[in-house]
Amino acid sequence: MKQYCVDNGSFKLEDYHPGDTNGFNGGKEAALKELEHLGERLSSLQNLLYAEKRHKLLVVLQALDAGGKDGTIRVVFDRVNPTGVKVANFGVPSEEERAHDYLWRIHQRAPAKGEMVIFNRSHYEDVLVARVRKLVPKEVWQQRYRHIREFERMLSDEGCTILKFFLYVSKDEQKKRLQERLDDPEKRWKFRKGDLEDRALWKEYMQAYQDAIRETSTDYAPWYVIPADHNWFRNWLVSKIIVETLEGLKMEFPQPEENLEGIKIK
Amino acid sequence: MKQYCVDNGSFKLEDYHPGDTNGFNGGKEAALKELEHLGERLSSLQNLLYAEKRHKLLVVLQALDAGGKDGTIRVVFDRVNPTGVKVANFGVPSEEERAHDYLWRIHQRAPAKGEMVIFNRSHYEDVLVARVRKLVPKEVWQQRYRHIREFERMLSDEGCTILKFFLYVSKDEQKKRLQERLDDPEKRWKFRKGDLEDRALWKEYMQAYQDAIRETSTDYAPWYVIPADHNWFRNWLVSKIIVETLEGLKMEFPQPEENLEGIKIK
Repeated sequence: MKQYCVDNGSFKLEDYHPGDTNGFNGGKEAALKELEHLGERLSSLQNLLYAEKRHKLLVVLQALDAGGKDGTIRVVFDRVNPTGVKVANFGVPSEEERAHDYLWRIHQRAPAKGEMVIFNRSHYEDVLVARVRKLVPKEVWQQRYRHIREFERMLSDEGCTILKFFLYVSKDEQKKRLQERLDDPEKRWKFRKGDLEDRALWKEYMQAYQDAIRETSTDYAPWYVIPADHNWFRNWLVSKIIVETLEGLKMEFPQPEENLEGIKIK
Repeated sequence: MKQYCVDNGSFKLEDYHPGDTNGFNGGKEAALKELEHLGERLSSLQNLLYAEKRHKLLVVLQALDAGGKDGTIRVVFDRVNPTGVKVANFGVPSEEERAHDYLWRIHQRAPAKGEMVIFNRSHYEDVLVARVRKLVPKEVWQQRYRHIREFERMLSDEGCTILKFFLYVSKDEQKKRLQERLDDPEKRWKFRKGDLEDRALWKEYMQAYQDAIRETSTDYAPWYVIPADHNWFRNWLVSKIIVETLEGLKMEFPQPEENLEGIKIK
């Protein structure tokens, strides 16, 4: 997994390739099969996380439009128990949210002990779209890198495991997917004209992603760049990283009450 | 005001005196008169803050039991409009609050634009009572100083003005006030037996306050040590600091709509 984890300050997006599938030893069929197993393991681990109520897991998903955030959530978290898993979607902030600092709405959705929370977009929008669309001056978005590092450090110190995924698709793949959205009556509702404006700012977004990832990938809250042109590889890689991270927590079921042995229910 | 503001890393509590009233030039009568004027100015400034909706004000009040937090709130914020002023009381955390990081419940109550929020106790309890009562290990409370500095830096960068007041009473004055609570049937409800346990830990609390104030007094979120044995001096000093801080913001009423001049309401 290490090759997809950003662990240094000289990170360049160009060292990664949206179409890359080298991390998996085998083809699509084999990956889908392994994905099945990973889904079962994730389901067990989530049950354990919920039962133990000691750890918290935060998964941050970022991508451009049609980058596959919704699809990743649907496939990777297919079998988990929704009681202990929450998806937090961060769209355009409401008036009340804009009246507070940008981390206000984010912090409210941070996981409690035993919970797994998936951020579909996140506080990173405040250094991505806010920068590219010039919603705030440079001085403002620049000082946010530090806020974010320190916010995530606090969450981590207080028992939260954090994984951040940038789903990296190529400009060609986005073109294909946006066209599909337009052409398919069941997908057309997802298409916004703003998607085209953002697409025209592709270079600026790539620069903003590169800087944000470089500035905020830490040992306690690492970024992973996920090659995402191939859905099967994307889903396999994200699942694999989450499963291996949870296994590293060495969780255990709580001790049952004493003297339960031999009890027959009448 | 400067003599009560903690602005360096060599801060010692013993350099301050709970019975001190030197900051005011005159006696109690004169102070009460000036407090009247300060109350009116604060009321106007709060109205302006609310109208302009550009700034946020956070006032943190910390003190030992019977230190005068409730009294300060009642007197200082006597004339403000409750629409724009909120008091957030932080008691023993609920089960849901304990399942999250300790700043989770705090951040939710942070002020919005145009608001003035008063924290009656705060996140500082997590490096005070949590330390003295050994609710968490030393490694945990020690790393919180940094979290708190960075949390307050973020609030400040995003437009929040922060004032932190430690209401400093002497051990003798606390004795007098707790005895009064016990003896007065209308005040007895405020007395908890735990107050006596905390009183027995006076020295430990003073050490914890000194360290917390030293570690977290910054230019963007300064601590003020308020000599609080004399209520009149405490109220005057807190009012004075808040009023002068708000005046420093150079607030202005929003521009009214155009062409309102000469309109006669029929």
